[in-house]
Amino acid sequence: MPRYVLTIRCQDQPGIVLATAQAIVEAGGNIVESDQFSDPVTGLFCMRTCFDSRTDPAERLSSNLARFDATIGLRPVERRHRIMVMASKLDHCLADLIYRHQLGELPVEIPLIVSNHPDLEPLAARHGIRFAKLEATPSNREEVGRELAALIEENAIDDVVLARYMQILSPEVCARYPGRIINIHHSFLPGFKGAKPYHQAYAHGVKLIGATAHYVTAELDEGPIIAQDVEPVTHATGPEELIAIGRDIERSVLARAVRLHAEDRVVLAGRRTIVFAP
Amino acid sequence: MPRYVLTIRCQDQPGIVLATAQAIVEAGGNIVESDQFSDPVTGLFCMRTCFDSRTDPAERLSSNLARFDATIGLRPVERRHRIMVMASKLDHCLADLIYRHQLGELPVEIPLIVSNHPDLEPLAARHGIRFAKLEATPSNREEVGRELAALIEENAIDDVVLARYMQILSPEVCARYPGRIINIHHSFLPGFKGAKPYHQAYAHGVKLIGATAHYVTAELDEGPIIAQDVEPVTHATGPEELIAIGRDIERSVLARAVRLHAEDRVVLAGRRTIVFAP
Amino acid sequence: MPRYVLTIRCQDQPGIVLATAQAIVEAGGNIVESDQFSDPVTGLFCMRTCFDSRTDPAERLSSNLARFDATIGLRPVERRHRIMVMASKLDHCLADLIYRHQLGELPVEIPLIVSNHPDLEPLAARHGIRFAKLEATPSNREEVGRELAALIEENAIDDVVLARYMQILSPEVCARYPGRIINIHHSFLPGFKGAKPYHQAYAHGVKLIGATAHYVTAELDEGPIIAQDVEPVTHATGPEELIAIGRDIERSVLARAVRLHAEDRVVLAGRRTIVFAP
Amino acid sequence: MPRYVLTIRCQDQPGIVLATAQAIVEAGGNIVESDQFSDPVTGLFCMRTCFDSRTDPAERLSSNLARFDATIGLRPVERRHRIMVMASKLDHCLADLIYRHQLGELPVEIPLIVSNHPDLEPLAARHGIRFAKLEATPSNREEVGRELAALIEENAIDDVVLARYMQILSPEVCARYPGRIINIHHSFLPGFKGAKPYHQAYAHGVKLIGATAHYVTAELDEGPIIAQDVEPVTHATGPEELIAIGRDIERSVLARAVRLHAEDRVVLAGRRTIVFAP
Repeated sequence: MPRYVLTIRCQDQPGIVLATAQAIVEAGGNIVESDQFSDPVTGLFCMRTCFDSRTDPAERLSSNLARFDATIGLRPVERRHRIMVMASKLDHCLADLIYRHQLGELPVEIPLIVSNHPDLEPLAARHGIRFAKLEATPSNREEVGRELAALIEENAIDDVVLARYMQILSPEVCARYPGRIINIHHSFLPGFKGAKPYHQAYAHGVKLIGATAHYVTAELDEGPIIAQDVEPVTHATGPEELIAIGRDIERSVLARAVRLHAEDRVVLAGRRTIVFAP
Repeated sequence: MPRYVLTIRCQDQPGIVLATAQAIVEAGGNIVESDQFSDPVTGLFCMRTCFDSRTDPAERLSSNLARFDATIGLRPVERRHRIMVMASKLDHCLADLIYRHQLGELPVEIPLIVSNHPDLEPLAARHGIRFAKLEATPSNREEVGRELAALIEENAIDDVVLARYMQILSPEVCARYPGRIINIHHSFLPGFKGAKPYHQAYAHGVKLIGATAHYVTAELDEGPIIAQDVEPVTHATGPEELIAIGRDIERSVLARAVRLHAEDRVVLAGRRTIVFAP
Repeated sequence: MPRYVLTIRCQDQPGIVLATAQAIVEAGGNIVESDQFSDPVTGLFCMRTCFDSRTDPAERLSSNLARFDATIGLRPVERRHRIMVMASKLDHCLADLIYRHQLGELPVEIPLIVSNHPDLEPLAARHGIRFAKLEATPSNREEVGRELAALIEENAIDDVVLARYMQILSPEVCARYPGRIINIHHSFLPGFKGAKPYHQAYAHGVKLIGATAHYVTAELDEGPIIAQDVEPVTHATGPEELIAIGRDIERSVLARAVRLHAEDRVVLAGRRTIVFAP
Repeated sequence: MPRYVLTIRCQDQPGIVLATAQAIVEAGGNIVESDQFSDPVTGLFCMRTCFDSRTDPAERLSSNLARFDATIGLRPVERRHRIMVMASKLDHCLADLIYRHQLGELPVEIPLIVSNHPDLEPLAARHGIRFAKLEATPSNREEVGRELAALIEENAIDDVVLARYMQILSPEVCARYPGRIINIHHSFLPGFKGAKPYHQAYAHGVKLIGATAHYVTAELDEGPIIAQDVEPVTHATGPEELIAIGRDIERSVLARAVRLHAEDRVVLAGRRTIVFAP
């Protein structure tokens, strides 16, 4: 029996769970996992249900849930998110995503790698992934934005993952794909925003450093947070060493965020995320 | 509207979520939180649902769920678990439970403290909690077991918490209250069982020490685990210091386990627990 | 043989370790623990040495180290830091410091508790600690500063610990006792400064919350960091729950910082600290 | 000026630090980092000193320290440990060591990879590392031991790293290279020894899983521990997922242990290690 992931998002009101369960049972389905949350800040009801079903319950769900004015997502688990990974020169996040994908840890497809530098092309080539080079500079952001949108459409990309991509995306691109672009920021936000966060952390003498994976919005390093982690450091941990420790945190936090997103476990709720962790 | 916590446990089969949602809607209820898990090891379906309802849905639930042969728990949130805390001489776990209870962190009632030593009586007295002293020795375990059972019945105790109680309970008591007696073991199980685990840890030169809260079974230090945590240590951390670090881990792990249990978030599934963490 | 803790701080230059070791050996001493660090940012050489010695090596050290223009601290371990704890209404940090002191975990003396509210007087009284109440408001900071200085001198106080004291100290007091006033800030600095950091954290949807113990300077929530820690949280962790989790982090981070300071393990180096952790 | 790492290990007695500091100063050296520990269990004095020196102080150190009957290690930092990595089929630990080596995180040379399977040869080839295949079975352990010893001698190998090598080494090899063979065990020792520890962990329902890097002794999975770490898991984390989480812990714990060892920060003291962490 095929397995489906269903996500529902609407204003909170009684009867949603019942209407959903009815549609699934009518379709001959059996729920294997279910999680829900009513957010007191936004008043949103969010639900993620995983079920096995002989028939596709899409129509039944639409009609049963019509009166709730809900945003419904229904995905057969075998149809995986197609992600486009963008990176500049540093390869630790990209290489880790590819490695986890190979091992079967990341249920995604990676048809395309995009960079503003040629350095990562051999890595892409070795794994048989198409590589596209962008001429991106701070002054041609809008043009690059149009190229990215074209690449996204042509390649049927679901999500963009910024795996240490060091250029800023145009506001148009950020606005066009809300909740579909994930960035890894090399700092424990809202700690050190902007450039060289590890050097900032060193100068401040912090005793923990971290990384944050978040959805990209037009506001730099400020989008809704998906995952964060930290590691302890000491006065003796110099900037180079902070960067090395940071690499480990970045790659694991980004991989976690991509996986949560690819399993449809993350729901946007204003400036926060609801994460239905496994 | 009163809030209820519903727990359901039965062999996995289609239709349980629907039958439950129907009963809640019929009673005029609205689900605020829900979590479920189908355990591949035992084949158990476990569910915890929190809902607000004007009327008590107990009868509707019983009849709707009758065909599933389920174990159903239904508790108005305002009726709190009544716990009896047992401790010997060390007071860090007991004092911490009382302190958290005062702050409103632990949704329980603590009507009774039981000990085999008089040392903790002043602490109980200061907080207006009844104190019962037991003459417990390794040789009168069965007699003590009967006294405990009597205290449990007389005081309408729901759960027993062993907060560094250093005597072993009789097999009869362990068998009589499955999933209702919580112990804190001062080791990262299955690491160091039995006596003096911190000294064992020191002799082994481990780099992490931990504590484990688990349900008590007749097998010593082997019951289903509810919560665990560890802290890093070094070669320079001597036995006394290990014990001090251990105190911090023990009290926080035990408090976490008691709270999870008191919120009906822990389900027994063979030798494992299903924990519906918030 | 009495045990001494020696701390040395000067511009880095060859020969300091040798001159120190000579003075200790000449005094009949035996080094039991030693740690040193040359800070590349400030060019400071910092050293902490613990040794047993029949005779007091103070004079030998002074003369041997004279040419290095060093700041020397020499303390017999049995002469403990005398700390004055300041708190407002919340008692979790204060109660924890007192509890750890009783258990022998904190090698300090606590002769005095100071508050701008009467709430904590019973706690002080129960442990036989003198309690002083201050009339502190945002408008009489300088006057309060003079009162504090008087209390510090009269009671031979070494260090002040702000254990959730909610008033701001005057710039004069901050400047007069550099590296001698420790504050617990209820946020992972440099995350959320100022008021209600847990509410800020909730609004931002962070996935980790933390606390920071730091030395107080005239700049609010910006002094050199001594210790930090974090705990994971989720979207479902509401503000009240964040505050409860925060209490646990605050009390453990503050206790760690006080202990490190009381064992002379923390050295100020510009806006950073060197921490010779055990 | 060349930098040296000096390690000293002998029975504890006064004057060792002074004799060492004198030798370094006489050679024109300047200490940049120093750490020492007197172990109460074994009575050992252990010291690690890092210093810059124009001339090689080996002779001065030998004569100055002669009366202490010390084991002295003196290594110019630029002469790196040469390690031979052994692995079977799983490549996550090996690939991670190679990647960190490339990034400059691991100050070692890796001239040789040894395996009992051909699977990892392409990985070795891609990085220009010699690959040797062993015919290792449980029945020819002694013969394999002789081959390994030959490879170690021919290639001037300092240390052997078992990066998920699934065969047991002969007792002769274990005894011949004490403190020179590092293994990663995929469990939080002393938790689950032997085969399939993640399946054991799942059956036990533990809430944390871990990995342990330790020196190899003739006793299986029992040698002195160098580094350990854990990650939280839940009832929903199935065996495959535990293995995936475990891969992350294993590779980071092994890398940490190899680096500590390669910087001469680990001293054997009976069944424990003294680790002079940076």
